[in-house]
Amino acid sequence: MDVFSNGQLKKAPEAFISPALSQDIIKNGIDDTRRGFLRQSFLAAAGTALAGASGHAAAQTKPTAAALGDPAILNLPEHSKTLGMPVASDGYGSPSKHEKNLQRRESPGLTRVGAASVSFAPLQALFGIITPNGLHFERHHQGWFDIDPAGHRLMVHGDTDSKGAALAKKSLIFTMDDLMRLPSVSKMHFIECGANTGMEWGNVAVPTVQYTHGMLSCCEYTGVPLKLLLDMIGVDYKRGKYMLAEGADGSSMTRTINLDSALNDTIVAWGMNGEMLRPENGYPLRLVVPGVQGVSWVKYLRRLKVSDKPFDTKDEVIHYVDMMPDGVSRQYTSIQECKSVITSPSGGQQLLAAGHYTITGLAWSGRGAIKAVDVSVDGGITWQRARLETPVLDKCLTRFNLPWVWDPAANNGKPPLLQSRAIDTTGYVQPKYGQLRAVRGTRSIYHNNAIQTWRINVNGEVENVHVA
Amino acid sequence: MDVFSNGQLKKAPEAFISPALSQDIIKNGIDDTRRGFLRQSFLAAAGTALAGASGHAAAQTKPTAAALGDPAILNLPEHSKTLGMPVASDGYGSPSKHEKNLQRRESPGLTRVGAASVSFAPLQALFGIITPNGLHFERHHQGWFDIDPAGHRLMVHGDTDSKGAALAKKSLIFTMDDLMRLPSVSKMHFIECGANTGMEWGNVAVPTVQYTHGMLSCCEYTGVPLKLLLDMIGVDYKRGKYMLAEGADGSSMTRTINLDSALNDTIVAWGMNGEMLRPENGYPLRLVVPGVQGVSWVKYLRRLKVSDKPFDTKDEVIHYVDMMPDGVSRQYTSIQECKSVITSPSGGQQLLAAGHYTITGLAWSGRGAIKAVDVSVDGGITWQRARLETPVLDKCLTRFNLPWVWDPAANNGKPPLLQSRAIDTTGYVQPKYGQLRAVRGTRSIYHNNAIQTWRINVNGEVENVHVA
Repeated sequence: MDVFSNGQLKKAPEAFISPALSQDIIKNGIDDTRRGFLRQSFLAAAGTALAGASGHAAAQTKPTAAALGDPAILNLPEHSKTLGMPVASDGYGSPSKHEKNLQRRESPGLTRVGAASVSFAPLQALFGIITPNGLHFERHHQGWFDIDPAGHRLMVHGDTDSKGAALAKKSLIFTMDDLMRLPSVSKMHFIECGANTGMEWGNVAVPTVQYTHGMLSCCEYTGVPLKLLLDMIGVDYKRGKYMLAEGADGSSMTRTINLDSALNDTIVAWGMNGEMLRPENGYPLRLVVPGVQGVSWVKYLRRLKVSDKPFDTKDEVIHYVDMMPDGVSRQYTSIQECKSVITSPSGGQQLLAAGHYTITGLAWSGRGAIKAVDVSVDGGITWQRARLETPVLDKCLTRFNLPWVWDPAANNGKPPLLQSRAIDTTGYVQPKYGQLRAVRGTRSIYHNNAIQTWRINVNGEVENVHVA
Repeated sequence: MDVFSNGQLKKAPEAFISPALSQDIIKNGIDDTRRGFLRQSFLAAAGTALAGASGHAAAQTKPTAAALGDPAILNLPEHSKTLGMPVASDGYGSPSKHEKNLQRRESPGLTRVGAASVSFAPLQALFGIITPNGLHFERHHQGWFDIDPAGHRLMVHGDTDSKGAALAKKSLIFTMDDLMRLPSVSKMHFIECGANTGMEWGNVAVPTVQYTHGMLSCCEYTGVPLKLLLDMIGVDYKRGKYMLAEGADGSSMTRTINLDSALNDTIVAWGMNGEMLRPENGYPLRLVVPGVQGVSWVKYLRRLKVSDKPFDTKDEVIHYVDMMPDGVSRQYTSIQECKSVITSPSGGQQLLAAGHYTITGLAWSGRGAIKAVDVSVDGGITWQRARLETPVLDKCLTRFNLPWVWDPAANNGKPPLLQSRAIDTTGYVQPKYGQLRAVRGTRSIYHNNAIQTWRINVNGEVENVHVA
């Protein structure tokens, strides 16, 4: 019995289907190779550790024994004729051994110590909008800890104003048990580090989307609304416009939170995709500030303090400021503007043959929901509207998809230049590099939301290139 | 410095906050015990393996050192004065060591071998609607396998009708790479085993919600729409109304899928919460049949065959039928009707003192979206409408929340009886046990969607009781 696979009929290395089933195929025929999207090829991810691409789309090995049917005649695979493994009597599951190449990865040499580094999420191989907790990106300022929740406390209090008048009526200290009895909410939101895509400011074309955009994740968070805690201490919201959030880890990360927006949707969260936060992500408590850069989502949260002015902390004065062309730094540019990226095909992947592919990616905005995503395959000359997966939520990742046929001979053989352009509900359109640099120059680290370009070379290699 | 915790002022075991901060509290005052919802107590989960309750809400240990402030004066916790652990240079994360009690668990003795058993999801300690993949419930008929996707194939073909005419124009065999190039969708849906809550038919009050309702999970699935694959083989939908789905594991699970509804939303899926399916959940390919009982979501999917009549397979004739009061069995009752359950407080948990709690739970319907959930604390005499977390999606879990103050002296000291009642967009209202049994009797195993009751005993113990 022949097998239809990779777009062509082949002698099967071993019998694959039962004689009865083969009659169906013989009678009804088998598709020929006219349908390009069944031809040999798929997105093969570059297998190097640096590329960090997933292995799951890279299967190029010959089919192994995969026979169905009568075990007396055919060579059945083991899993079709034996008793498998038992259910977990008491356990927590893991991914398949065949997915070992799908990992979050550190960018070697990015920082001097791993405790003040980044491990990037493998966006090129993720589906939908939820980031599995085991692959959520990591960014630490002094490493991560697995803090015992029984001893963890959150203090919520207020400063005095310039006249010495209190901005809150009282102060409170909460145990985790206290907090978890309070009314809670569950919301899906993206988190993006302000420095995501930061290397690209200087025309450094980082090879893969894991490293260009992988400081991005999306979870369903559960916790108590910040406003409830501030109501409990009796904040005077007319004067108390700012809040300090402080972490309990060694870096004592402190950030000023603007209460104007934070009262609407900020969460003091313990839950992440249904379970408790992971230690690398702030267990047992972190601030979730939707739409705002990740550094403000203070991990290991131990203190909230209301004030009438920003706090100008170290990480607001020295870091997380935007160097403008005139040498002046913009401060408190916390909101992550509308942005998108094609996650597949993307840098480091390999198209093995012409034919059908799905161009897929992610779009998000710190100002609201995504209204539309356009995709170009010619470097921004023409655009097609992509299909958005639902639900499309506020300050949350949105998955877009667009079918595409790669024909290396099309467009006079010019390599396709793949781009995505997101538009949010405020009407803001994601800028081209030229547009962004006209305002911001090239000396920034943070808040690069420009349109990303992937070039499909004639041999199918996908490469990160800069298009103005 | 005293600490406000568990609703009262205590001498802290060690200095907790810095002198500067303590001045704030001394000046602004500390809340007294008037606010019931800050009083001593929290939902403590029963710690036995049988109960399977989570440890994270059960923290009763004394606070450990948790000092902030000047390290020269105060005894800072290690995590506030040391360098923590580095980012993963190449890794996949795990939950905190303090969450070890949160596991999926087998019910001992439920089946004779673990390869044909169930491991239940710990609903009592999950948040929101997403089930983390590591805690997704397991149900196997002949154990699980970690199948190499490079050798896995899906065959899609058609039967002939009674006159010998083909129901599809051709047959196709797909590799995983072939499938993953096709246009894909991502959707969030619940999966519930048809036998979930099955023990309760016979008035067996299983102690915890993990065992009463834990064959329930919810993920974002990614894959190719079934209809696209059937279009590719040219199905004659006027005659081809049914489809066989067959798995590649030892049990060769086969189920008939009704194409009338399946063409709308059924997915041939490889993705689950952003990553590839877990081996226990059908890696590398499973059928996702929204709203239909889990057994039809065939794992290790190897074959789809269209027919003009149901297949009456073993698991449709001997199992997964509903024994009615007259001894006749209902067959092909696949859709999971509207249902809900309070997940906390729930059986095996312990309220440690009177005061504020959040009654939280899950609602779902195989017929559409959830319209409303009502909660009763008096066994169904009076009802209050709960708040639904958004998004509320079709054939997906919906989280509901309602604040509640437990006062053991209220209602003449009668123990509260907590119930939830879901209503879906078709107008269907989840039935009481009396209503369900009037139609279905007590001899069924499958499709029990009756209202669940948890009794709060005067000592705070939460117990599963049957209320007609």
